[in-house]
Amino acid sequence: MAQQIADRRDIDFVLYEQLDTEKLAKEPAFAGLDRKAFDMIINEARNFAIKELLPVYVDSDRIGVHFENGKVTVPESFHKPFKMLLENEFTSMCEDPEWGGQGLPHIIDRAAREYLSGACGALVAYGQMGHGTGKMIDLHGTQKQKELYLKNLYTGKWGGTMVLTEPNAGSDVGALTTSAKKNADGTYSITGNKIFITNGEHNLSENIIHPVLARVEGAPAGTKGISIFIVPKIWVNDDGSLGQPNDVVCTGIEEKCGIHGSATCSLAFGGKGQCKGYLLGQEGMGMKIMFMMMNEARTDVGFQGLFAASRAYLYAVNYARERLQGKELGSAKDAPDQVPIIKHPDVRRMLMWMKCYVEGLRSMIYYAESLFDKIHCSKDPAVKKACSDEAELLTPFIKSLGSDRGFDICVQAIQVYGGYGYIQEYPVEQLMRDTKIASLYEGTNGIQAMDFLGRKMGLNGGAVFMNMLNQMNGIIKKAKETEGLKAMADEFQTAVHRLGEVAMIMGKRAMSAEFKTAFAHATPFLNATGDIIMAWMLLWRAQVAATKLPKAAQKDVAFYKGQIKSADFFINTVLPGALGTMNAIAKGSAAAVEIDEASFGGL
Amino acid sequence: MAQQIADRRDIDFVLYEQLDTEKLAKEPAFAGLDRKAFDMIINEARNFAIKELLPVYVDSDRIGVHFENGKVTVPESFHKPFKMLLENEFTSMCEDPEWGGQGLPHIIDRAAREYLSGACGALVAYGQMGHGTGKMIDLHGTQKQKELYLKNLYTGKWGGTMVLTEPNAGSDVGALTTSAKKNADGTYSITGNKIFITNGEHNLSENIIHPVLARVEGAPAGTKGISIFIVPKIWVNDDGSLGQPNDVVCTGIEEKCGIHGSATCSLAFGGKGQCKGYLLGQEGMGMKIMFMMMNEARTDVGFQGLFAASRAYLYAVNYARERLQGKELGSAKDAPDQVPIIKHPDVRRMLMWMKCYVEGLRSMIYYAESLFDKIHCSKDPAVKKACSDEAELLTPFIKSLGSDRGFDICVQAIQVYGGYGYIQEYPVEQLMRDTKIASLYEGTNGIQAMDFLGRKMGLNGGAVFMNMLNQMNGIIKKAKETEGLKAMADEFQTAVHRLGEVAMIMGKRAMSAEFKTAFAHATPFLNATGDIIMAWMLLWRAQVAATKLPKAAQKDVAFYKGQIKSADFFINTVLPGALGTMNAIAKGSAAAVEIDEASFGGL
Repeated sequence: MAQQIADRRDIDFVLYEQLDTEKLAKEPAFAGLDRKAFDMIINEARNFAIKELLPVYVDSDRIGVHFENGKVTVPESFHKPFKMLLENEFTSMCEDPEWGGQGLPHIIDRAAREYLSGACGALVAYGQMGHGTGKMIDLHGTQKQKELYLKNLYTGKWGGTMVLTEPNAGSDVGALTTSAKKNADGTYSITGNKIFITNGEHNLSENIIHPVLARVEGAPAGTKGISIFIVPKIWVNDDGSLGQPNDVVCTGIEEKCGIHGSATCSLAFGGKGQCKGYLLGQEGMGMKIMFMMMNEARTDVGFQGLFAASRAYLYAVNYARERLQGKELGSAKDAPDQVPIIKHPDVRRMLMWMKCYVEGLRSMIYYAESLFDKIHCSKDPAVKKACSDEAELLTPFIKSLGSDRGFDICVQAIQVYGGYGYIQEYPVEQLMRDTKIASLYEGTNGIQAMDFLGRKMGLNGGAVFMNMLNQMNGIIKKAKETEGLKAMADEFQTAVHRLGEVAMIMGKRAMSAEFKTAFAHATPFLNATGDIIMAWMLLWRAQVAATKLPKAAQKDVAFYKGQIKSADFFINTVLPGALGTMNAIAKGSAAAVEIDEASFGGL
Repeated sequence: MAQQIADRRDIDFVLYEQLDTEKLAKEPAFAGLDRKAFDMIINEARNFAIKELLPVYVDSDRIGVHFENGKVTVPESFHKPFKMLLENEFTSMCEDPEWGGQGLPHIIDRAAREYLSGACGALVAYGQMGHGTGKMIDLHGTQKQKELYLKNLYTGKWGGTMVLTEPNAGSDVGALTTSAKKNADGTYSITGNKIFITNGEHNLSENIIHPVLARVEGAPAGTKGISIFIVPKIWVNDDGSLGQPNDVVCTGIEEKCGIHGSATCSLAFGGKGQCKGYLLGQEGMGMKIMFMMMNEARTDVGFQGLFAASRAYLYAVNYARERLQGKELGSAKDAPDQVPIIKHPDVRRMLMWMKCYVEGLRSMIYYAESLFDKIHCSKDPAVKKACSDEAELLTPFIKSLGSDRGFDICVQAIQVYGGYGYIQEYPVEQLMRDTKIASLYEGTNGIQAMDFLGRKMGLNGGAVFMNMLNQMNGIIKKAKETEGLKAMADEFQTAVHRLGEVAMIMGKRAMSAEFKTAFAHATPFLNATGDIIMAWMLLWRAQVAATKLPKAAQKDVAFYKGQIKSADFFINTVLPGALGTMNAIAKGSAAAVEIDEASFGGL
């Protein structure tokens, strides 16, 4: 039977062949674990996802969430799998068992979540958003706060959120007006209205803990005056029991293009003057604390693109194997039989394109997780810092490439299905609609492009970026020494060299009087660089596969050969387009900056 | 007040400055018309569209069509504007007034329809699909058939359809199994099941006339055995009165990603053995007759991309002018005020990109309409043939570029709106969903790519394609002589030259043993060539604008300057990417063709 959600062979390849995940088991931090344990977790997640989560994916869309009198109701069919999700301890697998986690490596958590979130991301998020809120308390809370909140958040018993956005403060978080006033008992009274709060209210959890960005009265304008508060929906008494509702009222939910099973809430804090919260960390540290979560959140959003794309690709490839339509190109005119559309060159092109990005994104995201595991295991601050910097640099690419190419892959899957792709009888149009959100939230992809050009490229004076190029060159060196890969290694080397040149140009331009022109090219630069990162990941994969191929078991031959074909396809058909874009960036037309506003027309 | 649906200044520019539409009024075929008359028609369409059609666009989506007991009900709010659409004679504006038309040029019809269909395409299509069916009868029917059907179809009183697809015969039309058996009275009994029939059943018209592809018993397999029949939903008596229902039963409608206001029907013909139809033309001519309509239908589908994109662009640009968010890049840290997001370089880049394709697509589609007008006016068969060939060559570009870039522009508009773009309170997500269909129906865009590479590029031994390159060179020559355009004309010339080279390579490859590899690059080749066509249209526009600029009225200065900026932006930032893709096509990786099916994984 065809695989669903994610190709297990490919996940294993990334975990154990491209990345050396098995060696994590030798680390003291993961004592007692081994590959068998890792595989068991992934198997459990996969089986549970296919059996319990995948069947409610359609309800997530067609039934969706409902709002009435301040209450949000999820589809009835969500309750049973949600309960099981928590029972199986799938919500905070990397965290300390003391607080409800399983102490697993990040990369194994990610593999398991490809199946869980891939099956029904909207449902799983109700369980996992508690993790993000918990993590903030874990890192910045007092011991008492941990004791009161942490376990219930990590286990998903209580929901969590991220409460930033206001109607006039979206990308410009610093413009927010929600206020906090310190009370005599050390709590703060919170007043303000927030929008676009994912899972801000719902009937899956007995409590929801909101980390809320607000400005303490008298604090300066902009981001530096922002603090962060723990604001429970239901007050938590000192003994851990639940008290009274905390004057957090859901005033509505958004009707959206997709993810109808996810409650996007407007929340009124302190409408009756009764909302209280605890300060997390120090006053004025709100943005810093939130942004530590933001990198995790952005990785998760990019991942959202991957898991949708992975599903869309598997649907498309298996549909293409079964759907009979047309004769094979070049066959005799009177050839009687229709062939599966996977025989048609244009369908193969679509599938190859999808395969390359799905696998390239998977490698990039898992690689970033491996960095987090290194940080967790290492005792050397220099190693920790280097890994953290590398992950920082990759974050805008994971977020934007994951979300944009993930969406594009869903769109491409619709095209493989033809007219059937557009109807709800087939799953791909829902995947497309659900995935569109990812380019928008947790910082639009335009914000990611500015993050790369304005901050990440120059991290440590550019040393982090140079290190990435060096890593690419390391793969090129290996590939050149591997039979059959020299030509594509040469092509890729040209691209890496060109990336270095264009990065210099863009870096200088961003610091010059023409900085606006530089930023008008930030998104194409992010995308073209992203394609070079994809080529890096795919060449790396091909190099590993080519090395294994001579002694490969029969069952692995097609897989390994496919890795080499993917690199060939990507480097020779997609990368040249990215290099063309690099030429445009180097040239640096200022047209978008110079054009008069009136010239956009429509007035 | 901001413009809606389509920018009138730009439409006027294409009609009267880029193309010389005014001179049509001097043609005998359009005697009595003048620019004032043309403008009046467009104004009426625009006013009606904004006042009556635009307000029901949301109902088209949120209420949509409903199916019960074989009947399809459209939203209640559709009835009044539909009635007015017919009363205003907007359904067949180019046809002979004798049969219910207005005798207008195609290009004026197109401009008027940008407003009509742009406001609510699903509704307008109920009126305009009768035109397509009528046109087939006009061209191939008997005098009696014309008298019985034509006026009611052209005026939209009766609906029309295109009945091709069956569950196993989509792109492979030749595989259809619907049968026709000749009766003693000259009619044919029709038996078969069809799917994906747009407006196959609905409650807006008293009758629906179906042109049905079917195979006469004993006819050969494949496309050459296919005939086409006129099959009324309600039998039409010889005196024109309506008779009995004709055993055409709607068995269901599709739940779709978008265009919920459009009824996508499954139809059973002759389930009780009582369905009759008239042969149109001769037996075996079905595909030929249908494909004459298919070019019109494909142009309309590309146009669907344009009108959605035009709306999405106007929404985005006007939103960007009003939405305050963030400070101007490079402003002092303590700058107090948020600025409209149109000040941000990345937003300007998005808007420029949208503007270029909207305007480029508009020029391409209107240019094609001007060819149809030339055909209509000319008495010289050689001119008619040349114009017809040129339109044939442009058809796959209009269909695929219109639908794909049109969709992309809607997606980009969502991005300009940020999170708001994803919610149904704003119109852009509906535009995206509604537009996705266009890459799929009337021949998927993959089919268009094969049409270009396998047929259109080689039309008349390649002379039609060479003529297009010559026309591009003509604009280059003019642009080089125009102040300020030389540099971009040079860049564009390089691209045109490269297109010629790559076309030679692809043409040879398609005829060689590597033909599958050629067709695996057909879609990128279509897209990259399409971008060169866009650059042609935009440089042409810039050349016209630059020539007018020195003596332009103050109110036109920003518009003309904007034309030059668009060409600058497109040629210097988009075209280099297309040239990179051309390099990949020239190189011709065979990876997509060579990869083992098993290597796609997922098994």
